[in-house]
Amino acid sequence: MQFPQLAAFTGGDGLIRVIGHRGARGVMPENTMEGFAFTLNCGVRLLEFDVVMTRDGVPVITHNHSLTGSIVRDGAGNWLQGNTPKVADLDWGDLAALDVGGLDGHSDYGRRFPDQAFLYGARIPRLSDLCELIAQPGYQDVHLMLEIKSDPARLQEAATRSEVVAAVVKEVRALGLAHRTLMHSFDWQLLAECAGQAPEMPTSFLTQRPENAADVGEDHASSVSYDLTGEGANLPDQVLEAGGALWCPYYLDVTATDVARAQKLGLRVAVWTVNEVADIDRMIGLGVDAIVTDYPGRVQRRLLTKGFVWSETQAALSV
Amino acid sequence: MQFPQLAAFTGGDGLIRVIGHRGARGVMPENTMEGFAFTLNCGVRLLEFDVVMTRDGVPVITHNHSLTGSIVRDGAGNWLQGNTPKVADLDWGDLAALDVGGLDGHSDYGRRFPDQAFLYGARIPRLSDLCELIAQPGYQDVHLMLEIKSDPARLQEAATRSEVVAAVVKEVRALGLAHRTLMHSFDWQLLAECAGQAPEMPTSFLTQRPENAADVGEDHASSVSYDLTGEGANLPDQVLEAGGALWCPYYLDVTATDVARAQKLGLRVAVWTVNEVADIDRMIGLGVDAIVTDYPGRVQRRLLTKGFVWSETQAALSV
Repeated sequence: MQFPQLAAFTGGDGLIRVIGHRGARGVMPENTMEGFAFTLNCGVRLLEFDVVMTRDGVPVITHNHSLTGSIVRDGAGNWLQGNTPKVADLDWGDLAALDVGGLDGHSDYGRRFPDQAFLYGARIPRLSDLCELIAQPGYQDVHLMLEIKSDPARLQEAATRSEVVAAVVKEVRALGLAHRTLMHSFDWQLLAECAGQAPEMPTSFLTQRPENAADVGEDHASSVSYDLTGEGANLPDQVLEAGGALWCPYYLDVTATDVARAQKLGLRVAVWTVNEVADIDRMIGLGVDAIVTDYPGRVQRRLLTKGFVWSETQAALSV
Repeated sequence: MQFPQLAAFTGGDGLIRVIGHRGARGVMPENTMEGFAFTLNCGVRLLEFDVVMTRDGVPVITHNHSLTGSIVRDGAGNWLQGNTPKVADLDWGDLAALDVGGLDGHSDYGRRFPDQAFLYGARIPRLSDLCELIAQPGYQDVHLMLEIKSDPARLQEAATRSEVVAAVVKEVRALGLAHRTLMHSFDWQLLAECAGQAPEMPTSFLTQRPENAADVGEDHASSVSYDLTGEGANLPDQVLEAGGALWCPYYLDVTATDVARAQKLGLRVAVWTVNEVADIDRMIGLGVDAIVTDYPGRVQRRLLTKGFVWSETQAALSV
């Protein structure tokens, strides 16, 4: 195997990996250290999360390009109203006072996650905060699916793209985590830049067919993603040709034929974001390598009930 | 107020307390230190849990009188099969190797909690383990709703009852936690014994009408609880007369009249175990003092959405 870190994302007979989406968004505030800690404590050792760059060049962990009104509270405890600033137009110091510990239950986005815990004092983490945690002893089996989500307006310039990738790669390498990280994006140009700058990190290609995109309250990928209009089962071939090691299709898009084709080509297949029991069961049936989910406990439970495990360690514990 | 610890269980204008049932059974394995830590981390500082005595006199935290096959795995990782031993017939040392970190998804009980995390190596805690945790700095606001659940066959003897209560009271007092603990039970005789031995701890009277009892996979309280057949809205009066400070009715039993009557008598009203959004909303509407739930995050979110808080500290943070 060319990339050692791919093993942690590779399924097998009776083995499907569980990847915590933004930690465990269904249970804990997304993209927070509190959420990552919870996910890791539950035995889910693969973390998906999103990185955006601040104006002063700090890679921080948050999903949308602009601060999300339904998530972000100001120093007085109020959710942000109206047009919110872009992270790319703020410095790290501006973010440090914001609280991302709880959803506004009156928002469409907040209603999507009624069980998500409500915390006080949860901060937008820096990429370095998460890297420092998992560089500690006891976290050597943790792997990162690091999605770069910077402002598409800025990333269209090659120089900016290069700068963002360089900053992210620098942080990951600084803590010796390159051999435990996948670079993950909808933006195939950005992934080419990653592969160029950091050939030791495999790339993970996100795709979503425009007709299935309906995630209320989130930035959509359409502005940066590869145009899938009219594309069929040859998508795995295109991912391979573009240099991908892992293909990460939206779960509603994917068929058994797709999965079989991708795996035959030597790609790993991780599906996102799979939350409902019927969908989880269908993905298990397709034999994907990994499932990205907001409810890692629910996926673990479905796997066990169907006789699957999510790690080799656990297989040894379960006999 | 006669008992200072009652303040933590008292609601008010825009304030309803959240009590984590066995920690947070919907999310984390019940009655485990891992589950209690999760619940506390989410800002839920009132813990309900169950205490049973081992043969060698150690109060341990577990719900059923016999080890529950759908919860308890042996050293080889297999859920217990067939007739399982009673905790009262085992020593503490016998319990230390058992794993209570995950539900058998094929059992009726396991199917009730599809999102509960699956852990390896979670042990049945001793009462002293939990008391030691919350005696630490940083946990001074944590209060305990301590349910004594020992084997009814043994508790029918006054001498055994006295012995069990004495062991529990000793542990709680040893760590200076009496002023943060309620004694909670379906067994009114047992509560009288508690009040006699530990007059500094208020008593909390659990009730459930037999016609509404339908919790699959759990020991029922009917063998020890006060006979409610034919009882109506005078139940609060009877709780008061029996010396109760808090009345804890099953949520399906309770009406607005009951709550108003109980509060008029000076009782606190906590309802158990309220998990579905429609039921949570109804209980908020009744103006109960506290809600006991397997999904504390869900209750917190419903409260916030309706303009309520669950603690004074939070009210100060939210302005």
